[in-house]
Amino acid sequence: MSQIANSFQEAQKAFLILKQQGSQKRVAFLKEIANQIELLREDLIPVAARESHLPVGRITGELGRTLGQIMLFANLVEEGSWVDAIIDHSDPDRKPAPKPDIRKMLRPLGPVVVFGASNFPLAFSTAGGDTVSALASGCPVLYKAHPAHPETSRMVANAIKAAVTVCGMPEGTFHHIEGGIDTGQELAAHPLAKAVAFTGSFKGGKALFDACNKRETPIPVYAEMGSVNPVFAMEAYLNENLVAAANTYAGSLVLGVGQFCTNPGLIFVPKAHEKAFGNQVVSQLKEVAGAPMLHEGICNTYHQALKELAASDKIEWLLTTEASQVLTGNPSLAKVKASDWLSEDAFQEEVFGPFAIMVVYESIEELEKATVKLKGQLTCTVWGDSTELSTNKDFLNLVEEKCGRLLFSGVPTGVEVGHAMQHGGPFPSTTDSRSTSVGSSAISRFVRPVAFQDMPEELLPEELMEKNPLRILRKVDGVFIR
Amino acid sequence: MSQIANSFQEAQKAFLILKQQGSQKRVAFLKEIANQIELLREDLIPVAARESHLPVGRITGELGRTLGQIMLFANLVEEGSWVDAIIDHSDPDRKPAPKPDIRKMLRPLGPVVVFGASNFPLAFSTAGGDTVSALASGCPVLYKAHPAHPETSRMVANAIKAAVTVCGMPEGTFHHIEGGIDTGQELAAHPLAKAVAFTGSFKGGKALFDACNKRETPIPVYAEMGSVNPVFAMEAYLNENLVAAANTYAGSLVLGVGQFCTNPGLIFVPKAHEKAFGNQVVSQLKEVAGAPMLHEGICNTYHQALKELAASDKIEWLLTTEASQVLTGNPSLAKVKASDWLSEDAFQEEVFGPFAIMVVYESIEELEKATVKLKGQLTCTVWGDSTELSTNKDFLNLVEEKCGRLLFSGVPTGVEVGHAMQHGGPFPSTTDSRSTSVGSSAISRFVRPVAFQDMPEELLPEELMEKNPLRILRKVDGVFIR
Repeated sequence: MSQIANSFQEAQKAFLILKQQGSQKRVAFLKEIANQIELLREDLIPVAARESHLPVGRITGELGRTLGQIMLFANLVEEGSWVDAIIDHSDPDRKPAPKPDIRKMLRPLGPVVVFGASNFPLAFSTAGGDTVSALASGCPVLYKAHPAHPETSRMVANAIKAAVTVCGMPEGTFHHIEGGIDTGQELAAHPLAKAVAFTGSFKGGKALFDACNKRETPIPVYAEMGSVNPVFAMEAYLNENLVAAANTYAGSLVLGVGQFCTNPGLIFVPKAHEKAFGNQVVSQLKEVAGAPMLHEGICNTYHQALKELAASDKIEWLLTTEASQVLTGNPSLAKVKASDWLSEDAFQEEVFGPFAIMVVYESIEELEKATVKLKGQLTCTVWGDSTELSTNKDFLNLVEEKCGRLLFSGVPTGVEVGHAMQHGGPFPSTTDSRSTSVGSSAISRFVRPVAFQDMPEELLPEELMEKNPLRILRKVDGVFIR
Repeated sequence: MSQIANSFQEAQKAFLILKQQGSQKRVAFLKEIANQIELLREDLIPVAARESHLPVGRITGELGRTLGQIMLFANLVEEGSWVDAIIDHSDPDRKPAPKPDIRKMLRPLGPVVVFGASNFPLAFSTAGGDTVSALASGCPVLYKAHPAHPETSRMVANAIKAAVTVCGMPEGTFHHIEGGIDTGQELAAHPLAKAVAFTGSFKGGKALFDACNKRETPIPVYAEMGSVNPVFAMEAYLNENLVAAANTYAGSLVLGVGQFCTNPGLIFVPKAHEKAFGNQVVSQLKEVAGAPMLHEGICNTYHQALKELAASDKIEWLLTTEASQVLTGNPSLAKVKASDWLSEDAFQEEVFGPFAIMVVYESIEELEKATVKLKGQLTCTVWGDSTELSTNKDFLNLVEEKCGRLLFSGVPTGVEVGHAMQHGGPFPSTTDSRSTSVGSSAISRFVRPVAFQDMPEELLPEELMEKNPLRILRKVDGVFIR
């Protein structure tokens, strides 16, 4: 048996044990993962910074976020209501037939394959949101490490394994697997795999989606494949806020060398403010020193994409960049007329890095046309004053159709990890707009509802027992009650 | 523009209007659909009975169920909490960065394509659960009529259209479309289609699933493709209940001439009771007169499937049937040893009609092996006394993995339409085990979460307004509150 086949056998064995454990054992396990990672802090930060070329400050912040995510899921499972427990009591006297007792809740799917992302060596990697939400749901995880930060990944994997031991979880609960594309494909193809979570490129995510749909038994693929996160700046708003808006925008564009899924790589600006807004953004971008990107592949792709765009005679460059040193991604800004943008699909492609296209529009009608043409996005941002927002509800309605999160102030970078976060939008930003990969709702990706009909009380999962020992919120005979 | 393209344009226009309406308008619309169908009752029942060859009593019951389903969704939308509203308030003083205000809820996907089923000319057809749950969610519906009951379908479609007029809903809210397989494919392929709901054969459902995954923008397909609904009868249970259990089982097997997705076409019986159980079921089945099936295609397929099974020398026939008249489906029962059942995939195939395979097992280990080999099912049923259930938790754990609904008494036919119902199981019983096509949770198939960040109060959907005008249950800063 191959190593991977063996890991799946162990994971399946672990799954059947996890399903019969109470949820409180998972809570202790999640907290212990956070504890074990915390113990590594001093050793982990420099390694992650070195491997990712990200500054220590950023990695320190990301570690805090990673620990916060783990605690968010621990608290969610501890509170317990996330399982959507529903009870419809029996009625033996009902005519024409007696009514049975039916109880439903969300139950874990089984072994989950998680792919690490290069741009978040901690928060979207080994003990990142995907792994932790899957473990929180009761699914074992087979984690495919990202080759860009192998040592970081091994250190965090050892922390999870230590938590497995400390908490007496089944050994197959977590597997750390290193390898290339073939390894990833083998993982996703295995009959015991029940779901896949991925953050990365469109090409990688779509290939997984296609492969998993062609399996003998298809499985859900939650691939977050990026987005250009359009910002729509409206005229009256800019009349009052141009400088501040341009500065905020430029700051978001270069954050993390533009290597965020929520990087705002597309901005619509009204003709009246075209020059002033462009100049202000450029003046800000010029202040920013080029910084090293995550790895050579990403940096080469960034410069290649800019080169291809440069071949278009529809683009005017407001700020160009040359690769000054190996790995360096310098900010760059292009301008195009909305009518030209509408005629060219390539202007919608994500360029991963600190680059944006500024689209100059002449009317709301043109903006609506552009919105209809837009592909699905993780986020859209509309900057308008209260009058122009309330008189353009049809436009806002169209924008909503294109994204998972719609912002009315600020910028899309800086994704809150909370209950209301939605980090998942229409295809091609993700393969499943019904899901989020950030925030507590991410747990819902790895479960399915199971109904138990006339199940003896002593066999029911705790969440469905008549006396509600966990005191969770449940829908009982149509009424929400604790 | 083709008729279908035109219908989609109208549906999309309607969708953008529906999204901006309050939910209470949808409630009135759903209730008016029920009212309009009720007005048709006397005319509709004989037509549906004639076209489906189902008895008037059954059609009358199905009409009641259909009206009940509509009211279930009307009440669900009226209560309003189904949208899973979540609010995380802002904190402008948070360090290092202020916390934004984020509000999330489920929003409709867009135009939905619904395929009618032949075996429920009312409850799974024109104004059936799929159509009504999609309309309840705020999605327009393009309904592909089933050719087996065209007149029934037209009558119900006219009732829905009358309700559209009475309630002043946008004209494109509902489209009734007749045609063959090509028409269905064209509907599912249209770029404005956002989801597909289907109940029918594996072949039909899988073809839609594959086609929709290959679209430029893939869309979810909720196909319910049937199941053999295994019943596991345990030894101690049969010691006490053999005759009653066999009688109940036989009744379920022939209900509706076996033409239910939840028909229990596979039963595992312990060796000790093999003869007595088989004899009792056969004696019951012999009492049942063959009855007309839904249409000639289904009847021919039924007899063809039995003929193919008859070629196997591993099968012993306890009751055989010949097509006595055109359309007639007579009950039929075969027996096979568990060891033989395990060696032959064909013994798991659904035979749509009043036929079952009785599998004789020698031990719990054999039963567990069979469970592991089982494909995904809508339902599984375990009949055990309290001791054999509590001593075989590992077996029950395996059974749960194979189904959406797990029963401990009675039979899987007679699907309750309530909040806790789960009518959807692992592939290939459906294409999406995370969904149900029966019960109030069916509405969740046609929505996705959208988060609004720092949205001005006056622009928010009612469900997310600070003052909670609809008094729905919401999760506010992590706490459930009305």
